[in-house]
Amino acid sequence: MIVIIKRNATTQSIEELKGDLRKKGFDIHESQGTTTTILGLVGDTSNLSEDQLLSYDAVEAVKRIREPYKLANRSVHPKDTIIDVCGRKIGGGNFQVIAGPCSIETKEQITEVARDVKKSGAGLLRGGAFKPRTSPYSFQGLQENGLELLLEAKKATGLPVVTEIMRVGHIDLFRDVDVIQVGTRNMQNFELLKELGKLDKPILLKRGMANTLDELLMSAEYIMAGGNENVILCERGIRTFETSTRNTLDISAIPMLRKKTHLPILVDPSHASGIRHMVEPLSMAAIAAGADGLMIEVHNNPAKALCDGPQSLTPSMFDELMEKINRTVEFFHDLQ
Amino acid sequence: MIVIIKRNATTQSIEELKGDLRKKGFDIHESQGTTTTILGLVGDTSNLSEDQLLSYDAVEAVKRIREPYKLANRSVHPKDTIIDVCGRKIGGGNFQVIAGPCSIETKEQITEVARDVKKSGAGLLRGGAFKPRTSPYSFQGLQENGLELLLEAKKATGLPVVTEIMRVGHIDLFRDVDVIQVGTRNMQNFELLKELGKLDKPILLKRGMANTLDELLMSAEYIMAGGNENVILCERGIRTFETSTRNTLDISAIPMLRKKTHLPILVDPSHASGIRHMVEPLSMAAIAAGADGLMIEVHNNPAKALCDGPQSLTPSMFDELMEKINRTVEFFHDLQ
Amino acid sequence: MIVIIKRNATTQSIEELKGDLRKKGFDIHESQGTTTTILGLVGDTSNLSEDQLLSYDAVEAVKRIREPYKLANRSVHPKDTIIDVCGRKIGGGNFQVIAGPCSIETKEQITEVARDVKKSGAGLLRGGAFKPRTSPYSFQGLQENGLELLLEAKKATGLPVVTEIMRVGHIDLFRDVDVIQVGTRNMQNFELLKELGKLDKPILLKRGMANTLDELLMSAEYIMAGGNENVILCERGIRTFETSTRNTLDISAIPMLRKKTHLPILVDPSHASGIRHMVEPLSMAAIAAGADGLMIEVHNNPAKALCDGPQSLTPSMFDELMEKINRTVEFFHDLQ
Amino acid sequence: MIVIIKRNATTQSIEELKGDLRKKGFDIHESQGTTTTILGLVGDTSNLSEDQLLSYDAVEAVKRIREPYKLANRSVHPKDTIIDVCGRKIGGGNFQVIAGPCSIETKEQITEVARDVKKSGAGLLRGGAFKPRTSPYSFQGLQENGLELLLEAKKATGLPVVTEIMRVGHIDLFRDVDVIQVGTRNMQNFELLKELGKLDKPILLKRGMANTLDELLMSAEYIMAGGNENVILCERGIRTFETSTRNTLDISAIPMLRKKTHLPILVDPSHASGIRHMVEPLSMAAIAAGADGLMIEVHNNPAKALCDGPQSLTPSMFDELMEKINRTVEFFHDLQ
Repeated sequence: MIVIIKRNATTQSIEELKGDLRKKGFDIHESQGTTTTILGLVGDTSNLSEDQLLSYDAVEAVKRIREPYKLANRSVHPKDTIIDVCGRKIGGGNFQVIAGPCSIETKEQITEVARDVKKSGAGLLRGGAFKPRTSPYSFQGLQENGLELLLEAKKATGLPVVTEIMRVGHIDLFRDVDVIQVGTRNMQNFELLKELGKLDKPILLKRGMANTLDELLMSAEYIMAGGNENVILCERGIRTFETSTRNTLDISAIPMLRKKTHLPILVDPSHASGIRHMVEPLSMAAIAAGADGLMIEVHNNPAKALCDGPQSLTPSMFDELMEKINRTVEFFHDLQ
Repeated sequence: MIVIIKRNATTQSIEELKGDLRKKGFDIHESQGTTTTILGLVGDTSNLSEDQLLSYDAVEAVKRIREPYKLANRSVHPKDTIIDVCGRKIGGGNFQVIAGPCSIETKEQITEVARDVKKSGAGLLRGGAFKPRTSPYSFQGLQENGLELLLEAKKATGLPVVTEIMRVGHIDLFRDVDVIQVGTRNMQNFELLKELGKLDKPILLKRGMANTLDELLMSAEYIMAGGNENVILCERGIRTFETSTRNTLDISAIPMLRKKTHLPILVDPSHASGIRHMVEPLSMAAIAAGADGLMIEVHNNPAKALCDGPQSLTPSMFDELMEKINRTVEFFHDLQ
Repeated sequence: MIVIIKRNATTQSIEELKGDLRKKGFDIHESQGTTTTILGLVGDTSNLSEDQLLSYDAVEAVKRIREPYKLANRSVHPKDTIIDVCGRKIGGGNFQVIAGPCSIETKEQITEVARDVKKSGAGLLRGGAFKPRTSPYSFQGLQENGLELLLEAKKATGLPVVTEIMRVGHIDLFRDVDVIQVGTRNMQNFELLKELGKLDKPILLKRGMANTLDELLMSAEYIMAGGNENVILCERGIRTFETSTRNTLDISAIPMLRKKTHLPILVDPSHASGIRHMVEPLSMAAIAAGADGLMIEVHNNPAKALCDGPQSLTPSMFDELMEKINRTVEFFHDLQ
Repeated sequence: MIVIIKRNATTQSIEELKGDLRKKGFDIHESQGTTTTILGLVGDTSNLSEDQLLSYDAVEAVKRIREPYKLANRSVHPKDTIIDVCGRKIGGGNFQVIAGPCSIETKEQITEVARDVKKSGAGLLRGGAFKPRTSPYSFQGLQENGLELLLEAKKATGLPVVTEIMRVGHIDLFRDVDVIQVGTRNMQNFELLKELGKLDKPILLKRGMANTLDELLMSAEYIMAGGNENVILCERGIRTFETSTRNTLDISAIPMLRKKTHLPILVDPSHASGIRHMVEPLSMAAIAAGADGLMIEVHNNPAKALCDGPQSLTPSMFDELMEKINRTVEFFHDLQ
């Protein structure tokens, strides 16, 4: 951390600042230019916020040099993390497709979709039981009952399952779920993250729609700091001024996160665009940019889907897409 | 809701759509132009999402005419809602200032600040016990202990208190808190909103940093639909590309929300800017635009504050500001 | 400018960098910490870009300490600039209202509106002759003919006039215009800015809809560096994700620009919101936040206006608003 | 265009609106529901703006059904446009790479880079002579002299050249340039677009950093409406809240533009990210998403580049990348 001192700061105010910093255990390297004095702090700055420094009268500006995340940081842990979900590996060159409906609706629906996506080659089954809906009057998911149907579909097909949690109090209900998803609206629900940090189950953490990559990594750090290092990141589109797509897929997030962290990175092209015909090109782009997997919505009757119909693929569209996905993953594997 | 049919839609696909809509209880007004067919739906469309309609092959576009929120909607409830917190009224021409530190740190700190802001004329005391921090390594608040200190400060000064909740499981702990705050990161924590809807305590709902005004109102609707109509809205800055301020205060939100809803509207100039010298001009602007109150951070020693120091006022700055606030509120009251 | 050196940079790469910087005339203060080496550059860094430094292999990060604008910088020129347009002063405590139609349409229209806004107390007349329209099929303004009508309205009323330029080749046509406006889409039309820098006429520079305040000041600097220091800045709303207003008025821009620069700052509440009923509250907010003036669209028949009808006030609405503006300006003048 | 009438609109105000619309030549289909009246306009609505309709007292909302662009619209012109630049085809399955330095600096530099990128397989040479720089104190390009050096490099290598224009008055100077580029800051410099519409030279039109895809197409329409249908679109990143990359590449723009228009679509991964190591993954993603070409910055000595050094590839990096590009283009060609 570098602290730039105000031109007209008093000696007393500088000494006070330095005293406080030393009390916190930092060594201070001072550099006095003709017009500017700079303090370089040596020590673990991950629990020192820029704000605390800016509160001092003497401080003009602060520049963080080391990232505030440690466990998620590639510089600390250079090798790719590989997460194993019932034998399906994600990360470190292992690519997985998670597919299934937005919402679990009936036993027939989820089991049928599960069979279809398995046949096409999906590695994991997704399906929402607890649904975060903008409106209190929209279908909120089948809740506990939905979880049961999902677990039946797991039994029927052998596919491990991914589903979203929305509340600390539900953690027990998720005991047989294979991957617990934290949705975009809960990326900074820190109380939930802390509790998930106590489990040893993989957590799929979706980026908030207005959160920076560093904030995403800090949320991963919350889970990891609790002891659970099985975090899978997921880019799902950010909010911008563009209105022709529901969100803007931040494709740059993939290579940028790859530099910053060792955690696996998925992409959700269905939520990123909200439009069926864009799922294929965005899936191809995600693979090309280096993603470790995809999360795709598939529904056996999109027109009757209780949510996200316009972005859901039919099983036959998904089947065709999976073939392209497999060939493309292989192509880029060979290209490197 | 108006449904625009695709130019080349088959009769069968249109009939299927119409059949489904009638089953949901809608009357359909059909208008056939030379190139475009339009369906107008008559009935309660608040639980029908655009997405459900867009999932049909026959549908080109959908245009919602009535807003999806009902209880929060001014057209349903034309008179301003006035919320009474221990005798302090907010809304309908009643202006309140909520002041206090970002975090509760010690008994002396919170009591001293409470006494100071009360003397200056603040109507409610704020102070964070559970703190949502981006980093797991930052100070997370004094938690239960902080709540106790806040309630002691309430007893010492008589000021009703406002503090943030982060978890459904904490609701019982908040039983003596006068106004429960839902922070920007939890605006779409729907499980929390549902539970708060079961209380009869005022809820201060802060706008998410990337949420539209309609989404804010839908979150208020979640609380109200549960039976708790005591919702106070709070604009606290949104996330944009501008980097010289922490957030961008959306001043237009005040007159726009005023049209859309009958609920009281507060502004938080401290979080909106993140910079001490901007608190005064933004407070003045908020009053001028018609806000029902302000929420301002005050700390007795900003340089040593455990969070948000750079945006906190000292008690004497706040005292000066309160005098200007009072005169300005009165001026605009007379101007109307 | 502070240059942070990569941890693993070779001595040779550091020496190369230092050599190049010395050749450019900078003195270098080097500070070697245990893990980080920092170079502080002393000299005029306004023509050194961060990018040039980041191109060096040895450089990890760069932090600019002094702003890259000089002539527009308040630290260089602490006193408020006051711009005099035919006796109407703007800035330094002098408040002006510029009013008139979006487009000049007929002689009667512009003259009638001019008379009306003058009677209500506007200090300058606005009216568009060359109109930047998103669509080539929309009305493009009356062009040269419109300029003539505007100048006739000036003659008839004595009001100085403000109108937008879109092309270097038109500068001669604008010789009798009192204030030349650079619109939001041309804020970074640097060739135009350079030519306007050669005039000695006031330039009203509108902020681009996705430009930072520092970029706005750099565009002002283009004009000033050419020799024309008569620049008036105008905040007119920025582009965000919010869709209920056309743009988001960045009210914080006023106090932030006030710190950064000595130039006068106007606000355009008509374009910021795009909605008639929001012009009054946003005008009040702008005054409260410290603006030096307002730019407001007034049309004698908004429903028949060739552009921007929904945001235009009628002359009688404007008359009522002007009374409130005058009282509010006076109130805040006294409050300070 | 569908016009939704206010619930409480008077018959007179509706009749006035209908009368005006009929005078403009529209047929009106009226549909009266129990609570809502809707007018459907039949006729060419491309020169009717939503604003004009919203100005009427009777109008609640307007919904455009047909896009306001015609010549650029795929529904009008279903076949892909192929643009031929001295025998290099772009669009309709033809892929081209444009490469070269940000700025032309010396004869040696531009000729050397030209030779290198030609050898690696680039189809066109880029190089800036007139440079749009945020700061007036930054290097502004070699101007006329730069153009000459670029044309010499063209002569030496046979590569057609692409360079940016910033001013109508310069059009004559660009007579021997093969493709004229309109930069992101001039995307809505409508006066420039109009003049370029009179040429019969290909125009490379870059998306503005805060412009929607529909606005990009309206700017293309300006050029095409003037008679020049040789427009190549270029996505180069948009401005968002994310700060770890310079811009956010909007990868969804490729498939979305593909639906909307028949014009060729390029991607500029160098400006989109501003970071060298991201050029490869973003190039791969652009090809995978269906782009018709790439525009890549290459410099023979990035550390000494006068602009955009951090994002420039060296010729040998580019050579490696070209091999991957060629294989990837071929792969996706076969995959379809």
